[in-house]
Amino acid sequence: MGFQLPDGFTVAGVHCGIKQTSNIEDLTLFVADKPCVAAGVYTQNQVVAAPVTLDRQRTPSAAIRAIVANSGNANACTGDRGDRDALHMATLAAEAIGADAEQVLVLSTGIIGEHLPMPKISSGIQAAKMKLATDESAVISAARGLMTTDTRHKLASRRVLCNAGEYQMLGFAKGAAMIGPNMATMLGVILTDAPIAETAAQSLLREAVEVSFNCIRVEGHMSTNDTVLLLSNPAVGQAALEASDVETVSQELGDLCIELAKSIPDDGEGATHLIEIQVAGCRDRRAAHRIGQVIADSALVKTAVAGADPNWGRIVSAAGYADIPFDPATVSLYVNGFLLYENGQPKPFDESVVSESIRSQRNTTIQIDLGQGDGAARIWTCDLTAEYVRLNADYHT
Amino acid sequence: MGFQLPDGFTVAGVHCGIKQTSNIEDLTLFVADKPCVAAGVYTQNQVVAAPVTLDRQRTPSAAIRAIVANSGNANACTGDRGDRDALHMATLAAEAIGADAEQVLVLSTGIIGEHLPMPKISSGIQAAKMKLATDESAVISAARGLMTTDTRHKLASRRVLCNAGEYQMLGFAKGAAMIGPNMATMLGVILTDAPIAETAAQSLLREAVEVSFNCIRVEGHMSTNDTVLLLSNPAVGQAALEASDVETVSQELGDLCIELAKSIPDDGEGATHLIEIQVAGCRDRRAAHRIGQVIADSALVKTAVAGADPNWGRIVSAAGYADIPFDPATVSLYVNGFLLYENGQPKPFDESVVSESIRSQRNTTIQIDLGQGDGAARIWTCDLTAEYVRLNADYHT
Repeated sequence: MGFQLPDGFTVAGVHCGIKQTSNIEDLTLFVADKPCVAAGVYTQNQVVAAPVTLDRQRTPSAAIRAIVANSGNANACTGDRGDRDALHMATLAAEAIGADAEQVLVLSTGIIGEHLPMPKISSGIQAAKMKLATDESAVISAARGLMTTDTRHKLASRRVLCNAGEYQMLGFAKGAAMIGPNMATMLGVILTDAPIAETAAQSLLREAVEVSFNCIRVEGHMSTNDTVLLLSNPAVGQAALEASDVETVSQELGDLCIELAKSIPDDGEGATHLIEIQVAGCRDRRAAHRIGQVIADSALVKTAVAGADPNWGRIVSAAGYADIPFDPATVSLYVNGFLLYENGQPKPFDESVVSESIRSQRNTTIQIDLGQGDGAARIWTCDLTAEYVRLNADYHT
Repeated sequence: MGFQLPDGFTVAGVHCGIKQTSNIEDLTLFVADKPCVAAGVYTQNQVVAAPVTLDRQRTPSAAIRAIVANSGNANACTGDRGDRDALHMATLAAEAIGADAEQVLVLSTGIIGEHLPMPKISSGIQAAKMKLATDESAVISAARGLMTTDTRHKLASRRVLCNAGEYQMLGFAKGAAMIGPNMATMLGVILTDAPIAETAAQSLLREAVEVSFNCIRVEGHMSTNDTVLLLSNPAVGQAALEASDVETVSQELGDLCIELAKSIPDDGEGATHLIEIQVAGCRDRRAAHRIGQVIADSALVKTAVAGADPNWGRIVSAAGYADIPFDPATVSLYVNGFLLYENGQPKPFDESVVSESIRSQRNTTIQIDLGQGDGAARIWTCDLTAEYVRLNADYHT
């Protein structure tokens, strides 16, 4: 099945020389044919890259015309000059497509602490403008222009069936937290022709990000550049959606974001397993989310999965230091559906069977139930392999 | 220089068969010739091992006669039977040395979720009782009886020069957080003949642990079994120390604990560097400690050091997600004394020189100054190598 752009958008990805390897796209333009409703959700890191500072000021909005993105350089920790470069990058894109300077958002990902090569950015924007298109090859080039150490581009689409009509939604993503050698960031861009009101866009996007991109971990290192943007560009004359249609859009948006988000740890550096951690039985969702995060960040849990070792002691003990009060006597744990620990007591199990179940599948499911309420959350991460260390330790050697 | 036991103590380490390899010590007895002042500091994990539950009830105390420790089995996540086994282990040791059952503390470290082999523990206690001695070979056997995946035993000693006289202090430690394949825990035991009052022992030990064992990280996975115990067994007739002598003891105890604590990440699995993170310029010590912890837990920082890569962007961005407010424009960073980042701006530096400085030394020093106060802390960790992953992933395969 192909990936189709929603009506009203054109995109292009080109190589402008930020990345050393020729013919690898490193600059992407997303362009709307008229001002769009736009929302953004950003990294919680206090040390934020220049494009994040810029986009935060410009969203939410009802007047965005384009997003210009580059990979290979994060424009992070670059001081005042970095802020001027991000602004200049937006202005160059605005001039190229005939928009006002403040109608453009900026995304950057790549190496931290180096200044953007502005002549390359400028020529890249000109080249991308010439290639703006709606076909699938343009969509794929645009997705590839976001990639750093990703081994594959990440796209997801949804057809949204509302009472008011049928809409398209197309999402682009890259990376995972800071998984790359010297690289940074996860980025996401969601384009739709569904008529989302400016007042609703920000909360819809925040809710979708909360259960998707905010639920993935690779090594728990929060990037300076994480950004997810949503652009809504309905056909002229479309009325705002009624409540039940907003609910439909919200469902599809959340579902699409989860698909994109899971694709990130699934492509984590050196990863051999995608791990889904289902936490249940907590006082509330926040508590469940926190416990899932701590389990996902444990190098001991992640190496155990890499080694197909059903080492439930590492999982239970990680839950124990999440700063969420619980009674160990009501905790139960399943790995790939096998009950290993029940109400605080170890269960006898055939270790070789559970090992084989982990070894033979790409996906590992960890279910932990705290037995004290209805709060639940899902977190996705990947295993930690020697290949991850090699990629991150040996980059400069 | 040899390691000498303080007067009034005897120790022994024996092999009783908990560890598979023969002739590797796996049970240790520390015995005092009369009731001791004892203090204990324990893991903050909510999932605690049975010996931690027991020792918490029994400290602080002025009546402890012995500590019995085993390695190879953590007696953690073992339910009610685990609690009974820990109690039984203490009682067996008490009977062996002619003490009351409640005068004994227990330490366990090793695999989680398996029940203690009580017949082996029982015969080990009998064997250790027969070997109790004060010579250096007994001290080393005792230290070895605590080891799991440690590559070397860990001892440190201090001569404490007080106005009231000269005292000895000898410390034993093992492990680091949960660094081992299926193993757990750091343990510490400090024996002294300095006359520390029961009322002072607990606070002296807590202060010493705060700047030592609580400042080390390997992978940030908090164990179910972490315990540090202090026994004070002065000669008969010794008066309690005056305030200035208490201060001297406190200094020496803190210093000894730091030496023992640093030896743990220095022996971290697969480690090729001991990393000292000096955080300064924070509002208070707690903030500095938290930032140091987050930097120490970043797999990206740890792999960068393994690869001798002066990747300051990873360090600054880790500080940024520690949940401690600061202004990025006042942050400065040194690695091994080289200024890489000053007041929020990257500094030009010769990357090969800094790389060589990391590569050629066992110790790496990271100094980060937040520029907003006098709060400071030191944290020690080790680098993350492919060998760590191999040890933790391939244990069962």
